[in-house]
Amino acid sequence: MWRWAGCAALALGLALEALARAWRRRRRRAPRREVLFFPSPVTCTAALLGEPGLAPCRCPLPHGDSPLGRLLRRLLSARRSLELCLFAFSSQQLGRAVLLLHRRGVRVRLLTDSDYMGLAGSQVGRLRQAGIQVRHDQESGYMHHKFAIVDKKMLITGSLNWTTQAIQNNRENVMIVEDVEYVAPFLAEFERMWEEYNPANYTFFPQERGTKMTPAFGAKKGTNLMT
Amino acid sequence: MWRWAGCAALALGLALEALARAWRRRRRRAPRREVLFFPSPVTCTAALLGEPGLAPCRCPLPHGDSPLGRLLRRLLSARRSLELCLFAFSSQQLGRAVLLLHRRGVRVRLLTDSDYMGLAGSQVGRLRQAGIQVRHDQESGYMHHKFAIVDKKMLITGSLNWTTQAIQNNRENVMIVEDVEYVAPFLAEFERMWEEYNPANYTFFPQERGTKMTPAFGAKKGTNLMT
Repeated sequence: MWRWAGCAALALGLALEALARAWRRRRRRAPRREVLFFPSPVTCTAALLGEPGLAPCRCPLPHGDSPLGRLLRRLLSARRSLELCLFAFSSQQLGRAVLLLHRRGVRVRLLTDSDYMGLAGSQVGRLRQAGIQVRHDQESGYMHHKFAIVDKKMLITGSLNWTTQAIQNNRENVMIVEDVEYVAPFLAEFERMWEEYNPANYTFFPQERGTKMTPAFGAKKGTNLMT
Repeated sequence: MWRWAGCAALALGLALEALARAWRRRRRRAPRREVLFFPSPVTCTAALLGEPGLAPCRCPLPHGDSPLGRLLRRLLSARRSLELCLFAFSSQQLGRAVLLLHRRGVRVRLLTDSDYMGLAGSQVGRLRQAGIQVRHDQESGYMHHKFAIVDKKMLITGSLNWTTQAIQNNRENVMIVEDVEYVAPFLAEFERMWEEYNPANYTFFPQERGTKMTPAFGAKKGTNLMT
């Protein structure tokens, strides 16, 4: 009798142990899910963007947390790769973060919109000069995405264009996402567009272009047209 | 001996049954996670937007699936409430879908940008005339969100402005999200802005407005300024 009881208790114990292990694994794997809302109060980001070992910044700006600070921290967590797919990119702080990652050896690739990449204030030229690979569309429509993928695992996406105007003045959202059901399609779309926008496919006088009206970064509300 | 063995087998059976039930519950509760990419091919949406019982549409457009078709289906699944928080809203098809929901008794509320809501082609006046509640910002920055919440459970968000230009010509993304960690903050932000944009708080000559330059929906690429 005791032998049977022992076997049954052992089986029960093993089943419970397996259950506990599955639960622990599930807890460990819980993906990060975070939402940031803008406008962001202006805070000092020198500690995030400075080289380690520098003295603490003594500027008069507040040194606390902010949506921009959180966005920078997520971005700066990249160790291997950073895919950027950005309609407009003129924020100096986000530009510095991307350059910092590039200097640390992170493989950065940037897809962007051909009309916006050349505007005064754009960070795209600066990144290109530093050796970062950039490709752009050649279409009549906009390349209007605003997402980044960190280490092929974390998606940063939303309504926010990477401009100081949007960060400091607009109502915007940014989602930080690690669920593979979202990250995988965005990554696949990035790779598809990366191949499609291969410079070997560029033509230099596309027919569908409209006439430019000297667009400018950070133009005041009420002076902007439609996207 | 047989009594002990029976008890142990019963305990094991109960533990496995509980495990199976938890697994089934988890499968049933799995939230919807979907990503749509644009531009969307132009397809016929009459079957989605028509009243039930009408004859099948015989127009020459393709009648298959498309990102716009899927977006419309998610939107039209609303049974009780629809919160809309949209920078630009000029798509006639999406406008018809919202009117259809309003006629079915769904409680629709729309937050929008004060500069864009009055443009030629905007759906906002049409929705307002039909009795839908609309509130708008009065700020110098843009109300640049582009999200919808269906029945307080499903978030539809991304880079896509609800314009035909964006749907048919731009590279855009839309996420369909049911994870409460994303839906709850968006819903809370909507309610916060809904109160903040209460018409009782409107001033009719805000000081920070820029000078308008007759913005227009669907302007060609290269003729648009910065958001």
